[in-house]
Amino acid sequence: MNGLELLQAIAAGEAPGAPIAELLGFAPVEAEEGRVVFASVPRAEHYNPLGSVHGGLAATLLDSAMGCAVHTTLPEGKGYTTLELKVNFTRPITTETGPVVCEGAVLHRGGRVATAEGRVTAERTGKLLAHGTTTCLIISLDGHAA
Amino acid sequence: MNGLELLQAIAAGEAPGAPIAELLGFAPVEAEEGRVVFASVPRAEHYNPLGSVHGGLAATLLDSAMGCAVHTTLPEGKGYTTLELKVNFTRPITTETGPVVCEGAVLHRGGRVATAEGRVTAERTGKLLAHGTTTCLIISLDGHAA
Amino acid sequence: MNGLELLQAIAAGEAPGAPIAELLGFAPVEAEEGRVVFASVPRAEHYNPLGSVHGGLAATLLDSAMGCAVHTTLPEGKGYTTLELKVNFTRPITTETGPVVCEGAVLHRGGRVATAEGRVTAERTGKLLAHGTTTCLIISLDGHAA
Amino acid sequence: MNGLELLQAIAAGEAPGAPIAELLGFAPVEAEEGRVVFASVPRAEHYNPLGSVHGGLAATLLDSAMGCAVHTTLPEGKGYTTLELKVNFTRPITTETGPVVCEGAVLHRGGRVATAEGRVTAERTGKLLAHGTTTCLIISLDGHAA
Repeated sequence: MNGLELLQAIAAGEAPGAPIAELLGFAPVEAEEGRVVFASVPRAEHYNPLGSVHGGLAATLLDSAMGCAVHTTLPEGKGYTTLELKVNFTRPITTETGPVVCEGAVLHRGGRVATAEGRVTAERTGKLLAHGTTTCLIISLDGHAA
Repeated sequence: MNGLELLQAIAAGEAPGAPIAELLGFAPVEAEEGRVVFASVPRAEHYNPLGSVHGGLAATLLDSAMGCAVHTTLPEGKGYTTLELKVNFTRPITTETGPVVCEGAVLHRGGRVATAEGRVTAERTGKLLAHGTTTCLIISLDGHAA
Repeated sequence: MNGLELLQAIAAGEAPGAPIAELLGFAPVEAEEGRVVFASVPRAEHYNPLGSVHGGLAATLLDSAMGCAVHTTLPEGKGYTTLELKVNFTRPITTETGPVVCEGAVLHRGGRVATAEGRVTAERTGKLLAHGTTTCLIISLDGHAA
Repeated sequence: MNGLELLQAIAAGEAPGAPIAELLGFAPVEAEEGRVVFASVPRAEHYNPLGSVHGGLAATLLDSAMGCAVHTTLPEGKGYTTLELKVNFTRPITTETGPVVCEGAVLHRGGRVATAEGRVTAERTGKLLAHGTTTCLIISLDGHAA
């Protein structure tokens, strides 16, 4: 399977998701070439000591959605590794926020490097909770640079 | 308690840590003014589908260590909110990496804004696994800007 | 004048631009609420020693366009200061690229903090040359936090 | 010449600097393996319309110092391209700041990717004016990935 087929199989429940997705409670719900959407329901276990959801949840969702968006553009035999991730936290997330969706979309797809952007929004209100960008290195799955 | 006292109490096991720290398995182990160290042991539950620990773990550790480093510089009555987080992933983390430590240190502490940097290293080898920076807004705990 | 009126006056040639815009050769060409476009023509003076335009030109254009986009949303009596800037360089810029445009657009406008994104594209081909995000602190022009 | 020899020759005035360094007024003053220092004197031509030096100056200095720090670690036949740049602006720079120095230092030097950090400080006071990080792709000078 190439990246897009893998994401679509996970989104359809036909392939297992990532262990960390199980642990934190998030999953892909849509995948097309260059764009992937993850969903999650923030809960008390995600909290920091300051009374809201830890920034690590939005960072993890963005890392997943943006990296997977890059993955959907790769043919079989190619993979990627995330070089860096930048996240802005624009509104606090709490258990009252309700379900959140995180959309990742490719901005640039070169031969060796790809970049993507992502947004976490509240499903009920559409409000922007966090946004980010990422830089990924495209690799051959034998481990050599693309 | 001010930020430093709170962190030291958590590190000493005298105050409860964050729910997300329980969920993901990490905790503060050192805290002094302007510098905090967290520790974690990467495990299979932290994996992405690509065969290594998801970037969200290092992002979460860095967000915690850098934000808490800022927190240790604040007097009672002041808090902070993280505006943004930037993470570079420099080496893959696997279950064979063994324990990792994440040190956060304040770079700039102004009246309204503070910045910090952080590094995740393998305890056994000292190798740099990830590094980051953050920007925090300092707030009065009544909710007004500092 | 508020921020939008100032930018529109500069774009119309009715108010002087920034000294650095004169030095580097760039200017605003469009301004509406939440969105500003700058234009520049890359030239030999902008080169690094590696045979292409120095990344500082795209960084400066993005810093201007994104900060000014935030500025257009502020009433009289409010200003902003840029806390941080993130830039991805996706394609080399040379003198053969021809004119470039840099669009900045607000992503989040809160009471104390705003974020924006920006893109530098080649006018002739529409190709994405660089993109970025920024975080700005909104201040009262008497120097206090908003 | 390899990267280190080139930087040392420019710092010694034995090789020409970059055209943009001439235009903006900055130059390398120290270079050793993994670390480069640039210097500049902020002047009125560098100003934005808000009454201080435009963020583009610090961004350009950081891009130069961090990229060149990576360059000093490369043998002949290898080059680099900067994938992304992140800058925090921690204090305003004005003509009263006096000379500034920008130090770039390598954080991670892998086979295909390197990261670096940098700091801009006021020479007189040692105060931190800006800081940043960067991600560079290492390339063979025939244009293939390293």
